[in-house]
Amino acid sequence: MDICENPLRNLWEDLCLRPSSLNQDVISRVEKIIDRVRMHGDTALRELSMEIEKRKLDNILVSDAEIREAIDSVSERTKRAVENAASNIRRFHEAQLPSQIEVETAKGVKCIQKPLPIEKVGLYIPAGTAPLFSTILMLALPAQIAGCKEVSLCSPAGPSGKIAAEVLYAAHFCGVKNIYKIGGAQAIAAMAYGTETVSRVYKIFGPGNQYVTTAKQLLNGKVVAIDMPAGPSEVMVIADETSNPSYAAADLLSQAEHGRDSQVMLLSSSKSTLNAIADEVMRQVELLGRKDLAETALSHSRFILFDLEEDIVDFANFYAPEHLIVSTEKPWEIVDRITAAGSVFVGHYTPESAGDYASGTNHTLPTCGWARSFSGVNIDSFTRKMTIQEISREGLEGLSETIVAMAEAEGLDAHAQAVKIRVTM
Amino acid sequence: MDICENPLRNLWEDLCLRPSSLNQDVISRVEKIIDRVRMHGDTALRELSMEIEKRKLDNILVSDAEIREAIDSVSERTKRAVENAASNIRRFHEAQLPSQIEVETAKGVKCIQKPLPIEKVGLYIPAGTAPLFSTILMLALPAQIAGCKEVSLCSPAGPSGKIAAEVLYAAHFCGVKNIYKIGGAQAIAAMAYGTETVSRVYKIFGPGNQYVTTAKQLLNGKVVAIDMPAGPSEVMVIADETSNPSYAAADLLSQAEHGRDSQVMLLSSSKSTLNAIADEVMRQVELLGRKDLAETALSHSRFILFDLEEDIVDFANFYAPEHLIVSTEKPWEIVDRITAAGSVFVGHYTPESAGDYASGTNHTLPTCGWARSFSGVNIDSFTRKMTIQEISREGLEGLSETIVAMAEAEGLDAHAQAVKIRVTM
Repeated sequence: MDICENPLRNLWEDLCLRPSSLNQDVISRVEKIIDRVRMHGDTALRELSMEIEKRKLDNILVSDAEIREAIDSVSERTKRAVENAASNIRRFHEAQLPSQIEVETAKGVKCIQKPLPIEKVGLYIPAGTAPLFSTILMLALPAQIAGCKEVSLCSPAGPSGKIAAEVLYAAHFCGVKNIYKIGGAQAIAAMAYGTETVSRVYKIFGPGNQYVTTAKQLLNGKVVAIDMPAGPSEVMVIADETSNPSYAAADLLSQAEHGRDSQVMLLSSSKSTLNAIADEVMRQVELLGRKDLAETALSHSRFILFDLEEDIVDFANFYAPEHLIVSTEKPWEIVDRITAAGSVFVGHYTPESAGDYASGTNHTLPTCGWARSFSGVNIDSFTRKMTIQEISREGLEGLSETIVAMAEAEGLDAHAQAVKIRVTM
Repeated sequence: MDICENPLRNLWEDLCLRPSSLNQDVISRVEKIIDRVRMHGDTALRELSMEIEKRKLDNILVSDAEIREAIDSVSERTKRAVENAASNIRRFHEAQLPSQIEVETAKGVKCIQKPLPIEKVGLYIPAGTAPLFSTILMLALPAQIAGCKEVSLCSPAGPSGKIAAEVLYAAHFCGVKNIYKIGGAQAIAAMAYGTETVSRVYKIFGPGNQYVTTAKQLLNGKVVAIDMPAGPSEVMVIADETSNPSYAAADLLSQAEHGRDSQVMLLSSSKSTLNAIADEVMRQVELLGRKDLAETALSHSRFILFDLEEDIVDFANFYAPEHLIVSTEKPWEIVDRITAAGSVFVGHYTPESAGDYASGTNHTLPTCGWARSFSGVNIDSFTRKMTIQEISREGLEGLSETIVAMAEAEGLDAHAQAVKIRVTM
């Protein structure tokens, strides 16, 4: 692991580059898939399943019998873990529920901001190398707490023709109404447009491969809203001489094992700490089931020495990491100055995996520097805020000169007229 | 004005169709403009100004002297109106400022949601047929209240080579830091990527022509965040026999005068009310400076009779209007059942123009049915919410079995290891 020492500011942009995922070939293929689903609905879903997954799609909607079977087959250990994690996730997200705001901005002018749940939302859960049922908790529980009326979920069936039992169990546990056995770009298109079987939703959440994320991006703001832009997962660890190198190494690896394009950054003002953690990473990576993925991820990751703590803070904010672990002697001195990160983990006993599963915070977070403009998934993500105003005759008289003067300066006669016709000025 | 009577539900989708704006030719041209600005910065901005606007672009950044000159030239009447409107807008948006949330989700597990302003935001203000300086108040004031550090604004110069004085005055009044004399897709690209002169921003707000909105859509989620999808403005009025037909007609026209593609909808359970309002619309439209635009907009607008109030509510929610005026005897009986609208105007003395300028609510609102998934601009639009967790050794011991069980079920060894290495289980 090479250590980059005190990089000059004009090099920071390059050090913060994330692996790019733009692919014109994928875009063209996804555009065709979207068009087919939009025009031919379920028929397209069945044809695409044969063409892409080489599998006959029998029932698109998962049946109650399949769900019951899945519930029976999940171990008690997993069920207990899901219940415990859900309890903490519920507690943190319930505390985020917004209240209605009412303000009398001027005499007789009442303005209200009324929170409302997004009525229909869709979740995508990839199958891939592991059944990521924890993501269901992170998406379906906030949807339930926010009061979304209809929560749908798409996930591709595995080679057995079934969705992983843990996924069905978690979806059922979190009150998901419709579970569809479809994956890929076609699942995103089906939820965006609706088909004979698949209920149309207004916002789509969740991770996926490049076909899924390309479909979300292409439909975003045209047909449907999405949670946030997609990108490979990343962690930044800030360590000092009080950090335990084996803890820090384990944290870096728990990110690196996510995938070949995961990015892992380590910052410290202590060269011996950087070296000790590098050694530990090399030792621990050998023990992992996903060693191969982790090694590729490590190859484009960065260990950086900054003599000044100020530079560490500035660089962290410049990078805007999805996950930031501050494992130093006085972590809050750094954390209080962090202005761009998805989720921050404070101190020696707060590994990222705690937030990934069970602390209560959400693990659907902005990657690729999007923490500069996006929040992670939270109750707001499932909520709209509608405004309401009620003005009395006297209230309108008080506002009338202001409205008319501005409307006239903007050349909008009818805007002025709508006031003048109601009040004598 | 034709009246559509009790349309069957299977026709509602067609009745809710908005004018489409997708244009492949515009997309291709905008893509080329974006590429040029990304690669050649200020040089591209100067060249594009010559090519598209046939004007030499001297200073891109508006000078202090230009701003002072503008401030001097704006009438006292307009200044007073801006100050009054700003006072109400400030009051309503300040009430929306989020607080930090802290929850101990389990013993020794502290979770925090910390609101942070988006540091750099960019506003676009079109020139077009009228200088829409009210939009500056609606975007720059919430940015200021949220605490955004750097607010930039782009607006094209008019034929005189200058930006309208009202725009410069309002921008200065609302604390905008950088004002750039550029417009069109190139202005959006400049703020998204940054140039030698134009500061890069993280989120772009504001209305614009099809080049501007196409550029926002193309860059959205790839390079920059945007406020919301764009679409022509629209109003829905719900009236009954207590409504004053001349008020309702004035409200419908104040929307219709916005542009040829504006959409105006009127719902009532009283046929005589619909007829009376239609007559008033025909009479008042003759008096408008923008009669021509308004007549085109009226030609694709709809007056609908529903015998049942329940159908009126259902149809309003199905349409999800940007503006909804409920001007009936007991408006709250309807308003309390509205679940999808940008902003609602209650009673006989609450015209849309009050909210457009001065009641305090925001006038940047979701059109085209996007109220199903988007809020209008509010303090959240300028805010991110970062999560923070701090777990004690005891706290991690309490969570450890949950985390390890879930990580193992998901096949993520290193995630489990990051916990096991810290605590004895």
